[in-house]
Amino acid sequence: MSEVKLEEGRVSYHDSVEEMLKRIREDGMSNVFDRWTKQEKIRCKFCLEGMSCQLCSQGPCRINLKGEQHKGVCGIGPDAMAMRNLLLRNIMGAGTYSHHAYEAFRTLRATGEGKTPFQIKDVDKLKWMCEKVGIGQNDDINKMAVDLANFLEAEMGKDIEEPSVMVDVFAPKKRKEVWKNLGIYPAGVVHEEQNAVASCLTNVDGDYVSLAKKALSLGLATIYTAQIGLEMAQDILFGTPTPHEVDVDLGIMDPEYVNIVFNGHQPFVGACTIEKVRQEAIQKKAIEAGAKGIRIVGSIETGQELLQRFEVDDVFVGLMGNWLTIEPLLATGTVDVFAMEENCSPPAINEYAKKYQFALVGISTIIGVPDMDHSIPYNPDKVGAMADELIHLAIENFKKRKGNIIAKVPKITTKAIAGFSTEAVLKALGNKLDPLVDVIAAGKVKGVVALANCSTLRNGPQDWNSINLVKELIKKDILVVAGGCGNHALEVAGLCNLDAINQAGDGLKEVLNMLQIPPVLSFGTCTDTGRISMLVTELANHLNVDIPDLPIAVTAPEWMEQKATIDGVFAVAYGAYTHLSPTPFITGADRLVKLLTEDVEGLTGGKIALGDDPKEVANNIEAHIMKKRQGMGLK
Amino acid sequence: MSEVKLEEGRVSYHDSVEEMLKRIREDGMSNVFDRWTKQEKIRCKFCLEGMSCQLCSQGPCRINLKGEQHKGVCGIGPDAMAMRNLLLRNIMGAGTYSHHAYEAFRTLRATGEGKTPFQIKDVDKLKWMCEKVGIGQNDDINKMAVDLANFLEAEMGKDIEEPSVMVDVFAPKKRKEVWKNLGIYPAGVVHEEQNAVASCLTNVDGDYVSLAKKALSLGLATIYTAQIGLEMAQDILFGTPTPHEVDVDLGIMDPEYVNIVFNGHQPFVGACTIEKVRQEAIQKKAIEAGAKGIRIVGSIETGQELLQRFEVDDVFVGLMGNWLTIEPLLATGTVDVFAMEENCSPPAINEYAKKYQFALVGISTIIGVPDMDHSIPYNPDKVGAMADELIHLAIENFKKRKGNIIAKVPKITTKAIAGFSTEAVLKALGNKLDPLVDVIAAGKVKGVVALANCSTLRNGPQDWNSINLVKELIKKDILVVAGGCGNHALEVAGLCNLDAINQAGDGLKEVLNMLQIPPVLSFGTCTDTGRISMLVTELANHLNVDIPDLPIAVTAPEWMEQKATIDGVFAVAYGAYTHLSPTPFITGADRLVKLLTEDVEGLTGGKIALGDDPKEVANNIEAHIMKKRQGMGLK
Repeated sequence: MSEVKLEEGRVSYHDSVEEMLKRIREDGMSNVFDRWTKQEKIRCKFCLEGMSCQLCSQGPCRINLKGEQHKGVCGIGPDAMAMRNLLLRNIMGAGTYSHHAYEAFRTLRATGEGKTPFQIKDVDKLKWMCEKVGIGQNDDINKMAVDLANFLEAEMGKDIEEPSVMVDVFAPKKRKEVWKNLGIYPAGVVHEEQNAVASCLTNVDGDYVSLAKKALSLGLATIYTAQIGLEMAQDILFGTPTPHEVDVDLGIMDPEYVNIVFNGHQPFVGACTIEKVRQEAIQKKAIEAGAKGIRIVGSIETGQELLQRFEVDDVFVGLMGNWLTIEPLLATGTVDVFAMEENCSPPAINEYAKKYQFALVGISTIIGVPDMDHSIPYNPDKVGAMADELIHLAIENFKKRKGNIIAKVPKITTKAIAGFSTEAVLKALGNKLDPLVDVIAAGKVKGVVALANCSTLRNGPQDWNSINLVKELIKKDILVVAGGCGNHALEVAGLCNLDAINQAGDGLKEVLNMLQIPPVLSFGTCTDTGRISMLVTELANHLNVDIPDLPIAVTAPEWMEQKATIDGVFAVAYGAYTHLSPTPFITGADRLVKLLTEDVEGLTGGKIALGDDPKEVANNIEAHIMKKRQGMGLK
Repeated sequence: MSEVKLEEGRVSYHDSVEEMLKRIREDGMSNVFDRWTKQEKIRCKFCLEGMSCQLCSQGPCRINLKGEQHKGVCGIGPDAMAMRNLLLRNIMGAGTYSHHAYEAFRTLRATGEGKTPFQIKDVDKLKWMCEKVGIGQNDDINKMAVDLANFLEAEMGKDIEEPSVMVDVFAPKKRKEVWKNLGIYPAGVVHEEQNAVASCLTNVDGDYVSLAKKALSLGLATIYTAQIGLEMAQDILFGTPTPHEVDVDLGIMDPEYVNIVFNGHQPFVGACTIEKVRQEAIQKKAIEAGAKGIRIVGSIETGQELLQRFEVDDVFVGLMGNWLTIEPLLATGTVDVFAMEENCSPPAINEYAKKYQFALVGISTIIGVPDMDHSIPYNPDKVGAMADELIHLAIENFKKRKGNIIAKVPKITTKAIAGFSTEAVLKALGNKLDPLVDVIAAGKVKGVVALANCSTLRNGPQDWNSINLVKELIKKDILVVAGGCGNHALEVAGLCNLDAINQAGDGLKEVLNMLQIPPVLSFGTCTDTGRISMLVTELANHLNVDIPDLPIAVTAPEWMEQKATIDGVFAVAYGAYTHLSPTPFITGADRLVKLLTEDVEGLTGGKIALGDDPKEVANNIEAHIMKKRQGMGLK
């Protein structure tokens, strides 16, 4: 696909979504695209600017600097009101990541204790992690797994008096002093969450600078004491990602099969179910029910977590796309079980379950879509039984669905290379960073941009901004490393396969052809923000420079939910130029905007950059990268 | 004071506040009462009904059931939108209580380790708690304190797989099965917070029933694994409250003294400073600076925590009132240090610090009033040095303030009996509950109402609703047990002293005269909600009935902040008729309103009752109590 013109009425970059939307509308179904249009009519301008607060019974308050409402009833001003709103969203993101980490760590522990069907798949990584954090090596791999799980869990709860080992081990060497001097050196994420949430209470922290520092600290805690540990734990359990070709987009669906879709962010139950469904006996059951077999479909981040670690074949068929593609997926009439453990599990899909006859199953304590058919909260000790139950439900559902529902599947699939990781990049480079440094020094690769975010309708059709920005960047010889729903956008748009090398600038093209890698390296999910930072940290430590010195940038061109906000705040604390679109709800707060987009650069070296036009944003990122190249004495 | 008429323009029940407001206005100071009036002009109706969401970048969304916006962009409906907003506020409350618990537990541990100037003051309570929770008794009191602190801290982090000992030990016997059957049996509060906050993320839990159950579970976790433990820890450190007479209202201020005010909820630094200031050498320093001496003033809940455990004398002079009295207090021009560790530390008092020349000092990591002169975050190991620093700052401030600021102090003080506790009530009853049961059975006391809440302007002048409701209740022979800023309202209004017996109905009057206790038993702060529940639980266990069977009710006639919301939710899960005023922001959500005000009664036995008119509310509470009396076979 070269370039799709922005046609009148188009809501998505993806033809498959546009095609399904016709059916959705014909069927009179409520859908995210049309709900967006309706809401456009009654937006609150105060809320859009962050000038609204509903926390206490003396509210709701609004700040109107042109009127006489310069403060809330409690006395809070515009900057603190907006920053507190933002910090609350940061806390929600941090809390969700740490919930995921909790599930990962207890799964690792239960596996070490022999209570799950999982094995320690990447023994080398287990040993590497244990060595890194100072856990004694011994012959008993399972004992090491238990020790590591307990260690990682304890790290999340550490308070300010006990220095975090994870931060000390994984933070860039030159950053730690900066964070200490600023008073943002983080404790464990659970402790930071609690400190931050108590700060947000009415009449506790009404100072925007203090609140902003808490956000930065929380961002660092999230990445170092939740995300990195949880991704490493998942690597240990299911294997470290390695690049391999996979299929994406809605064309992977086949109505003749029993289809179980795993949706959310956590790979545990899906991983177990893939292994089960690969057994002939299970396939036979599905065939006996009149299907051609039984398949696993990856949805959004759970799909990506599985995709980057499991081969795609006739059983695990690939990834459907990102979160805005969920309603279109469900309208294909091909799904039997939609199993959910985290966001995005949109709350109106109960109507789709009724209309297109699939079973809505929650597989986590946190999930709560209305009218769920079943809720089987995750417990690592019972993951085998959970998989069995899902297979049973799916086969039973197939019997009802077949003959009852007319399927409609867009005939569109794309190839993507998924599964990049720091290890995979190093391997491609011959196990050293120098080749990457050399091509950057030579200007063939001007710099690296990490894209990590969601998909939103606020700044245009689904994935429009993400895809067009990335196209601009690779044209400018900037390599892109991607995570999150934005990554799925790029995978589905064909930017993560080798054909896309042609869309890169000449310098980048040469390097990509040499290494046989695509211009966008699919690094996984939004949870892999930590994993992406590990690569950048390696580079900084290798060059003995600080993060703000590197010719890199971060972009979230379509952030949507609260986890994206904490990733963004992390990036600023980490020292990165951090582009965010849409503009966060803080524009009514002049001093706060100045702090986050200007002054913070003098503190952390990072800052927030705004802008909703892909070309302009790409130019700004390029200018930033060129400035940093100059600082390093490169052309 | 018999009854104050609601005069035109009056903003507070208290004459002292009205008097100070004149000065505040003359001095052109921004103040909470006038900010309220300004905000009244631009309230958002959607926010007032809970029909607004600003969580994600596809928002802000509003639900307008009469229009075409029946769902948010994500697909969330009105009931889940309102309940998620409420749950988020519950989480903030739970988070703040557990932050307080964290500080209490580490103070207990540090004291056991000999690192603080504190001693184990109530050895019997330490032994009692250890016995209750199964910690081995031994001769080393300090070792027991450390063990108990570690145990309590670990309880907060317990997940669903490990049953909480605190819940098992302190919950009413007959409640546990009810909670298990409903799926709301709580884990540790920190675990529940994380589970709940991850549930509130966009596209995670969009089901109002599921969200409501999480709130109930979180409420139980807050009381049993944070509040009760922290209050017991504070009793162990500073003594279990016992009733004694104290002075309240702004007349306690004397400008000729160096005055250090402790404000918030946590007694640690204040307790240490009181002991120091009672030393002659410290008084001498103040006298050398030209003062008559140096004094400690209790502000809001921190004041109450100190008040219920320390005698009031010429050094610790009493309590100023509740949170809406803070700006009036600061305008008296008598304060030298305003030391803050939690809410309510209103964000615009930096202007008061400049105008009336006092030092604004944060003594917790969570505090962030703009332009703070000093931030000395609490650390139990350094509490002695913190107290020294505050004394130093106060004396230096006095030198500036004296001669510079003209003081204005309302000549109003009132007597109150503070310091009731389960132990104190039992002691008054001759160490058995039967006398209380007897007077209830005889109808002399119809029932007991627990009042726990804040103070707000939403439903009338400051404390108007709380005080008038209580007056109605005691007239009806209903005994009131009070905690929180609402309790300070009653203390300042003279309802917590023996003169107030005359305002009680004949039956209650007889009992109060016999026991020589006031009609309102001051049970402490909002944090003492757990303490109040311990008395009710004792009563239920003693009678071998369940909580919903008892002739009791809970009221929060002026709830304001988010901790009040989690106390309210706890009361519903606990099985109590729970009156809330103002009406929470949920009225746009019909099914949710029905669930919380009607259907939940069939589940937990408790429910939320609404109403802003004191007489009507009192009648409803009386009717509820009479129904429960009837159920127990009483007249």
